[in-house]
Amino acid sequence: MKTPPVIILVEPQLVENIGMTARAMMNTGLCELRLVDPRDPWPLGEVHRQRMAAASSGADEILHNAKIFATLPDAIADLQYIYATTGRTHDMVNRIMTPRAAIPDMIARAGNGEKVGVMFGRERTGLVNDHIVLANAKITIPLNPVFASLNLAQAVLLIGYEWYQAQDATPADYVHLGGSVPATREDYLNFFRRLEAELDAGGFFVSEEMKPSMLRSLQNTLQRAAMTEQEVRTWHGVLTALAAGKRKGSA
Amino acid sequence: MKTPPVIILVEPQLVENIGMTARAMMNTGLCELRLVDPRDPWPLGEVHRQRMAAASSGADEILHNAKIFATLPDAIADLQYIYATTGRTHDMVNRIMTPRAAIPDMIARAGNGEKVGVMFGRERTGLVNDHIVLANAKITIPLNPVFASLNLAQAVLLIGYEWYQAQDATPADYVHLGGSVPATREDYLNFFRRLEAELDAGGFFVSEEMKPSMLRSLQNTLQRAAMTEQEVRTWHGVLTALAAGKRKGSA
Repeated sequence: MKTPPVIILVEPQLVENIGMTARAMMNTGLCELRLVDPRDPWPLGEVHRQRMAAASSGADEILHNAKIFATLPDAIADLQYIYATTGRTHDMVNRIMTPRAAIPDMIARAGNGEKVGVMFGRERTGLVNDHIVLANAKITIPLNPVFASLNLAQAVLLIGYEWYQAQDATPADYVHLGGSVPATREDYLNFFRRLEAELDAGGFFVSEEMKPSMLRSLQNTLQRAAMTEQEVRTWHGVLTALAAGKRKGSA
Repeated sequence: MKTPPVIILVEPQLVENIGMTARAMMNTGLCELRLVDPRDPWPLGEVHRQRMAAASSGADEILHNAKIFATLPDAIADLQYIYATTGRTHDMVNRIMTPRAAIPDMIARAGNGEKVGVMFGRERTGLVNDHIVLANAKITIPLNPVFASLNLAQAVLLIGYEWYQAQDATPADYVHLGGSVPATREDYLNFFRRLEAELDAGGFFVSEEMKPSMLRSLQNTLQRAAMTEQEVRTWHGVLTALAAGKRKGSA
């Protein structure tokens, strides 16, 4: 992973949101948190500290290392490219990116050794023009236009989520096998031969003409499931039990 | 937008999480919420109802239309493809998808008229095997493996976020101009000619040899910013003011 962007919360009002932000950062591999003029003065009193810690669900490390600044320019002085998150269109001419487009830009900059940061405004009001003018670009998260207001920590989560996804190598879509072994073609063919014989014996096929397409359909279902060796064995057992039941029933 | 997936919360414990789930759904264009055996019996008492409503930040419509079921099979009986969200690898052989891979699959099914749903387990414990066996596939969100536990509503948000992004046409990266008009090449060239003349007069260029590359560098900065007509006019004013100041200073 490249060095993650610094997360800057401007004038956060609720210690719960600071805690939940730390949790979202830890979930998504972000680590450096800076707070600008938080409503409750730091170091926090015991009650506030506990409320923040509860909301963080154990992301203590990030809270412990969080840095507090009196002003936004102080908080971002060392950064080389800054993104301002906002849901609003301001009257300034600005580069505006979706999170999905901003992340490759961030990764390229981080790979270049640039120190980048993402600013988030205070609850309800968000970032104002005086904050946004300190950024190089804006990030706006595409959301339902009639209900676009996100909780502060959820906005951080979505940025972190995109950051993590862009660098994660989890297979997009696969079958988890655990210790199981996928069935071979021979396993399938043996099973289909037995299935056909048992169905023939049971009078399943109404006509010789229809038989091939009916068999293909049955094969198709089981092949689409991509069975394991163990599953094929279990279905052999199912065949045996059904055939035995039928013989008992007809005896 | 295609018909969104139904969101199913299995045994949710906290009314705040139900409210925040409704908010996340509304943010991301999801609309149908089903609750299986919630801890607090429905209809909720006044205190619980108010706590849920506060957490939903106005997503009343979704809460009002939420349906309550006694069992999971009842809640999903009409669905045709079901995804189970889980952070854990169970011992079952299962198709596992990232949210980003699951969404195109959902959209294709929805486009096909299939009714699809996504199940979320209760806080702390998540979905167990008896729930997961009722799904066609699992969704696992790639997250920091040593800190992967998400709040319930945040898990819903990430699925909804991917759903919304996949169907949203917001430009990924553009310059917001408001009412402004981008400068033409002539605007740039006129400005650069004046800049060169004023810098010549001010003795800026140390040598004729270096002049072309110094000019290119200045041009490059301003062109990279993709200026508007108004910005070019403003920079003309800056030139005039600076040159006037110099003349006054040297008078």
